[in-house]
Amino acid sequence: MTESNFAARLARAMHDHDSLVCVGLDPEPEKFPPAFRNSPRAIFEFNRAIVDATADLVCAFKPQIAHYAALAAEDQLADTIAYIRERAPGVPVILDSKRGDIGSTAEKYAHEAFGRYGADAVTINPYLGFDSAEPFLKYADKGIVVLCRTSNKGAREFQDLEVDGRKLYQIVAEHVAQKWNANGNCLLVVGATYPAELADIRARTGEMTFLVPGVGAQGGDVNLAVRSGMTKSGGGLVINSSRGILYAGAGPSGLSDTFAAAARHATLELRAAINAARR
Amino acid sequence: MTESNFAARLARAMHDHDSLVCVGLDPEPEKFPPAFRNSPRAIFEFNRAIVDATADLVCAFKPQIAHYAALAAEDQLADTIAYIRERAPGVPVILDSKRGDIGSTAEKYAHEAFGRYGADAVTINPYLGFDSAEPFLKYADKGIVVLCRTSNKGAREFQDLEVDGRKLYQIVAEHVAQKWNANGNCLLVVGATYPAELADIRARTGEMTFLVPGVGAQGGDVNLAVRSGMTKSGGGLVINSSRGILYAGAGPSGLSDTFAAAARHATLELRAAINAARR
Repeated sequence: MTESNFAARLARAMHDHDSLVCVGLDPEPEKFPPAFRNSPRAIFEFNRAIVDATADLVCAFKPQIAHYAALAAEDQLADTIAYIRERAPGVPVILDSKRGDIGSTAEKYAHEAFGRYGADAVTINPYLGFDSAEPFLKYADKGIVVLCRTSNKGAREFQDLEVDGRKLYQIVAEHVAQKWNANGNCLLVVGATYPAELADIRARTGEMTFLVPGVGAQGGDVNLAVRSGMTKSGGGLVINSSRGILYAGAGPSGLSDTFAAAARHATLELRAAINAARR
Repeated sequence: MTESNFAARLARAMHDHDSLVCVGLDPEPEKFPPAFRNSPRAIFEFNRAIVDATADLVCAFKPQIAHYAALAAEDQLADTIAYIRERAPGVPVILDSKRGDIGSTAEKYAHEAFGRYGADAVTINPYLGFDSAEPFLKYADKGIVVLCRTSNKGAREFQDLEVDGRKLYQIVAEHVAQKWNANGNCLLVVGATYPAELADIRARTGEMTFLVPGVGAQGGDVNLAVRSGMTKSGGGLVINSSRGILYAGAGPSGLSDTFAAAARHATLELRAAINAARR
């Protein structure tokens, strides 16, 4: 990658691949095709096949770290990222770890994401406030993706609480856009499952890029999400699908050996649906 | 451990060791004494010395996972926990990872904490709401420690926002106490640096146990924190010190070989200060 910062690298991948699709690399070995089941490197091998099948169609890959941590497979996460560098050097990697802790500890988490794994961007949780984000934000050439309005049903419980006429997620969006973004490296997580909130946050944050989970397995409507969340120029969105792509080929007996072709097909369809919505 | 759940195990350790002290195992190898510097297992060896020096004085150990993740030292975290089981089987382990994600991913994080590491309790972030906590909460015999009012300066930014006369952290405290705690396995994180908030949250949550960081390096006043946060019977607090104990022996040139004795001394002093305050 020759571009100097995450925003530029992401924009280049979006342009080169005509795509706002991000493939979430959330491996679940119990769903893998039989051929992978006995390999000690099954997670890496599965991811490699997905990367091979989709790298020319996406603007980013997003491994969700819990899927590796639960299985003591940090080495296979590192190998997956190394493989993306080799196979698709123009496609940035967003490490989805939703970290959040006091400053001295946040420094360690930032090192985990950027030093250990060499990710281009990381997701973080805003609950602890600015000083918990600062150790991430100072990596000016990385993307810092702050949870704002998440895609799950329970998001309402705290994120929708109203403070002097504004909801908590609206305040988070404004603080990030106006105060946290001095280096221009902030993004926001906004779920596709909440199109009205996507539109609201777009209106409050100008051209800021959103990472949008919730299409596919979580049921978000692609057309509605894109039209609600996009910038005036039809961009500003990184639309993630994990299960909807990885396991697109699953039949009653699970995935077969054609899973990668099915993943490619699902990625092509999602890219086309997004592009139709934004033009 | 023979007790069946975290609350009982914690209460037993508090009673047996006459202690509300939790030692935070946050290894920073650059601070280790020279004798450890060249060992590939320095983190484990340092932790082992701290556990040996303090196990009879504490009610819990709390490894903070970022310190291991940043250094690709998950194996030494696992070995540290295994060593605590062997050396101090009555002392529960709180894995401090502050996880928070949608339900299907939270299941993986719960497996990380309880399956992979076999922790007795884990810290989580409330921002995503109840459904993000549920995969943890269903482990009825484990402790689920929810961030409420954190110890850092930036805690105010969102946690103090006022919603119809109540602050966000107060609402989190009440939701956890009244709705999330069906299995009686919830605790709250409340920083020692905010004694007024400790008293307020105590008034709202009855006998719920608080994990209290912020004494020692972060500057919280032990006497004030204990008197503000304790239950009527002088308990209900797990008071964590990490740097204040691990690096108690640090001089101008760092830690010497007497670091473990210094850690023991600091733990004894903290236990005594807490016990004086609560009686």
